[in-house]
Amino acid sequence: MKIITVSREFASGGRELGKRLADALEIPCYDREIIDMVAEKHGFDRNYVANVSQSDIRAFYPSTIGRRFLVPHPAEQTPLKITFAQQSIIRQLASNGECVIIGRAADIILRDFNTMNIFVYADKMSKLARCKERAPKDEKLSDKEILRNMKQIDKERSNYHAVLSDTEWGDRKSYHLCVNTSGKNIKKLTAGLAEYVRLWFEE
Amino acid sequence: MKIITVSREFASGGRELGKRLADALEIPCYDREIIDMVAEKHGFDRNYVANVSQSDIRAFYPSTIGRRFLVPHPAEQTPLKITFAQQSIIRQLASNGECVIIGRAADIILRDFNTMNIFVYADKMSKLARCKERAPKDEKLSDKEILRNMKQIDKERSNYHAVLSDTEWGDRKSYHLCVNTSGKNIKKLTAGLAEYVRLWFEE
Repeated sequence: MKIITVSREFASGGRELGKRLADALEIPCYDREIIDMVAEKHGFDRNYVANVSQSDIRAFYPSTIGRRFLVPHPAEQTPLKITFAQQSIIRQLASNGECVIIGRAADIILRDFNTMNIFVYADKMSKLARCKERAPKDEKLSDKEILRNMKQIDKERSNYHAVLSDTEWGDRKSYHLCVNTSGKNIKKLTAGLAEYVRLWFEE
Repeated sequence: MKIITVSREFASGGRELGKRLADALEIPCYDREIIDMVAEKHGFDRNYVANVSQSDIRAFYPSTIGRRFLVPHPAEQTPLKITFAQQSIIRQLASNGECVIIGRAADIILRDFNTMNIFVYADKMSKLARCKERAPKDEKLSDKEILRNMKQIDKERSNYHAVLSDTEWGDRKSYHLCVNTSGKNIKKLTAGLAEYVRLWFEE
């Protein structure tokens, strides 16, 4: 049963790679759909859910002082609920059948499943080029600003990971395969990757 | 033109993976053969060459103090010559045609070539199992001793890399693909990998 998680540096093409991989394997891919599911199931606003998903959830988590839990302030409870709801939906999706799940620390959340965990990355210049290629026409950010945003988003991903696991986000040891997409055509890479994934699950 | 370098943690199965990959791609694989070539071409003793290849060459390299080079002591010159001879043969092999080169910092030595650089690794227990499976029957090392040796060999590989490059040995950013072989059948993995490599070189 193929369950593949794709973690990725921002703008490395990880989402495209995950979607193409799912297509090649003829299994569903879950990405932003998870946000819709959380919003729908729990009656939260979609944008609010998307926003919480992207923020540094360490701020929302109950802290401990010595052995005493600090109960989160009521204003902090909704983000926590959203985080838990998202985790529960990810586990549900993986229980339902074969799939690719993009981001959302699915590699950690599904650690009891026999997932294949892929990390996708690229060099700074390739990521910058990808960002600029895909930016809305009226976006007027300098390269420096784009690079700063990229770094910030990766930092948030890393922080989210750190709340859930002692392993380090992006450390190759935490993944079964690390794919560098720098300067490469992701469509082409995916064809070879699909074969690798198929055989990986065969034994 | 496919030139693939395989760097690997000791006992991760990188050599097997490299050889199988070369077979699948129908191109030659160079590993210990390089030692023979160095020994033959320069009239060095094969075991001595093998030994130098494995030791920490930082000790042999000329140091600088301020702007002044310290000329190496004559006893240190042979190891240096061997190191340079090895580099020159690796460049020659890559100029001659498609191939897989295992270890020997070929990824760094061939940085002017369009190589695909693969890093192979595995978790500690998989590597320990592989070591024990392949140990001579009369070898009576404890697990602790094997793990210590493994660590030492990887440290030497890392040091050799550090002499030649500012990048870090084993850091995913330095490679195009990082393959975790933990608990996997390398023969099966290689079939998928060969397809990935073929398409990687296609553009």
